Amino acid sequence: MAKQSPKEALETLGKDLVAQIKKDENPTLQLPVRSLSNVKFDEKTKKLGIGQKMTERQFFNVSHAKKFLQTIDVAGAIKELIDVDKTSTLRDVFYRVKRTIPGTKTETVDQQTESDKAIEDLELITGFSREKLHVNANKMGSVAGNVTVVDAGDTINWAKMGSGGWSIPSNVENVEFKKVDAKYIIYMEKAAVWERLNEDKFWKKQNCIIVSSQGQSTRGIRRLLQRLSSEHKLPIYVLTDNDPWGIYIYSVLKYGSISLAHMSEGLAISNVKYLGVTCDDVEKYQLQRHYIALNDKDIARIKQMADYEWFKDNKAWQRQFKMMKKAKAKVEIQALSARGITFISDTYLPEKIKNKDFLE
Amino acid sequence: MAKQSPKEALETLGKDLVAQIKKDENPTLQLPVRSLSNVKFDEKTKKLGIGQKMTERQFFNVSHAKKFLQTIDVAGAIKELIDVDKTSTLRDVFYRVKRTIPGTKTETVDQQTESDKAIEDLELITGFSREKLHVNANKMGSVAGNVTVVDAGDTINWAKMGSGGWSIPSNVENVEFKKVDAKYIIYMEKAAVWERLNEDKFWKKQNCIIVSSQGQSTRGIRRLLQRLSSEHKLPIYVLTDNDPWGIYIYSVLKYGSISLAHMSEGLAISNVKYLGVTCDDVEKYQLQRHYIALNDKDIARIKQMADYEWFKDNKAWQRQFKMMKKAKAKVEIQALSARGITFISDTYLPEKIKNKDFLE
Repeated sequence: MAKQSPKEALETLGKDLVAQIKKDENPTLQLPVRSLSNVKFDEKTKKLGIGQKMTERQFFNVSHAKKFLQTIDVAGAIKELIDVDKTSTLRDVFYRVKRTIPGTKTETVDQQTESDKAIEDLELITGFSREKLHVNANKMGSVAGNVTVVDAGDTINWAKMGSGGWSIPSNVENVEFKKVDAKYIIYMEKAAVWERLNEDKFWKKQNCIIVSSQGQSTRGIRRLLQRLSSEHKLPIYVLTDNDPWGIYIYSVLKYGSISLAHMSEGLAISNVKYLGVTCDDVEKYQLQRHYIALNDKDIARIKQMADYEWFKDNKAWQRQFKMMKKAKAKVEIQALSARGITFISDTYLPEKIKNKDFLE
Repeated sequence: MAKQSPKEALETLGKDLVAQIKKDENPTLQLPVRSLSNVKFDEKTKKLGIGQKMTERQFFNVSHAKKFLQTIDVAGAIKELIDVDKTSTLRDVFYRVKRTIPGTKTETVDQQTESDKAIEDLELITGFSREKLHVNANKMGSVAGNVTVVDAGDTINWAKMGSGGWSIPSNVENVEFKKVDAKYIIYMEKAAVWERLNEDKFWKKQNCIIVSSQGQSTRGIRRLLQRLSSEHKLPIYVLTDNDPWGIYIYSVLKYGSISLAHMSEGLAISNVKYLGVTCDDVEKYQLQRHYIALNDKDIARIKQMADYEWFKDNKAWQRQFKMMKKAKAKVEIQALSARGITFISDTYLPEKIKNKDFLE
């Protein structure tokens, strides 16, 4: 289907259904099963993906009818967005398709999760990402570096953004890279670390790009990184706290996430490397005095991650998990500040990058 | 004290203490009481503020000694930041001052709340805001409009930021406004609404500035709004969900917050107006079908706010609280999408602003 435009893909869907109706058939949608049982880790591409199991959604089937209606309603709302060349959000789409079925007290959608699921199904049916279907999630994050982009008619130089940076949009599909002059990208989970590196002009001195979110990265950020990685062959280094949640941020960037396994192709970035903070860094830079005890949730998460298919045979990561469990402690990246205000910019990062001290 | 620079104010503090020590006095800091009992709503300035009650912090007093040490340690860390002209974050300052007192197992600070409190005390002692003392919180938010600023040596045109906008730094004290060509500012709590208005070029059509956070506004955003309001006499309209939390965002912007009452002078913006979504809007634009039932926390919050000194004699707001309680429901701003993708940009906001349909 990918040779079609998103609009054509939706029209094909509609025409198929009309043809079925004209033949007096039960209108039926076919789509891959999206439950965990059909999520596979592809050893070759090193990405999570959807397996071969297919399912049907029929209009004349009491247990399918509502989902069928929701999928078609959402497809209609998306078609409208594409027709008027506007984008929207998951929340907005929910409100667009929510209505009471005449003569009943039944709502077409009760919860946003229902319209969200319909959008994810349409990603699979059409072969286009939600963003290409004009639906965005929340925007978040900042970027700076020697890069010039054209977006929405404006030419934007990421090197001239003062102390703020360019605010990353939720949808970066139409961002055009005009000039990319950088050796690598550091993606960090904390905006405060980004401000540290930006104030220290780290990206200028090191000729790199710095990208931050605030916590788990958004799809906008993931796509931006993915595009810079694939279109400009830039290595990406991930900088997080030394805790299971930081490692999971790396894991999602590299392998994809279970809930969005069907989108790994466009979102997962196989050559991402983990820069820190590692358990070895904690020892090397004497951060043990800033240990924070692991709680039960942390311990359970480490165990869960150590069992993930993509980590379970990875000796370097198993060693990290073991060290973290043994220390019974995690360390925040800000602990590096105890070594000096600009220690992270002047010593920690240049040393790590020079020595290629990465985890993969 | 405000005639001194932040550095001079810290030096004065240090010299005072040295003088006390040389006179064999018990080293003592004096500062206003910051508990709720000393937070006053000033009827004249319409801002929350700190009352007259003073307290002392003595070094030779077992119940004061640790707080005394923390205040001086943090003052030292801030002095260092100013000396090297770097900024830092609350979290970093915590790590900077945390150490074990030699020969004991006692830490100078155990929790970040302790160093945070010391910073707030130093705001009172020196008369300078945390930002002027080079300590920032998290950055958040985006801005677009016909405004050109100079920041960190870069000239930044907020009208040429594509779909992303300029990412607002955590500290806007050094942002210089070169050109401000706008009639008013809309501040919204939701980044998704900001993206809607930005995509629709609302700020260009209406000649205004659009600013968003994601939830409760940060101090960086509040100061940016405050500076645009006071230095460029721009009215500010607040756009949130129709719920007690949205109204509280407005309340904090206009009157200041209880926890930062001592900073209201530089942060509260008295001429802020509430644009929506009001309970009247819900009726006028027929959003009742998107009612979400109030939960117990919502109901308690409405009651609490209705009793606030600055709301309790305000008939317009009491009417809103009553309507919300009567409807037993709140409405999200995105419910406006049910009326059309660009209904908010094309109809709702232009109508409200043209009719000066604000709450104060």
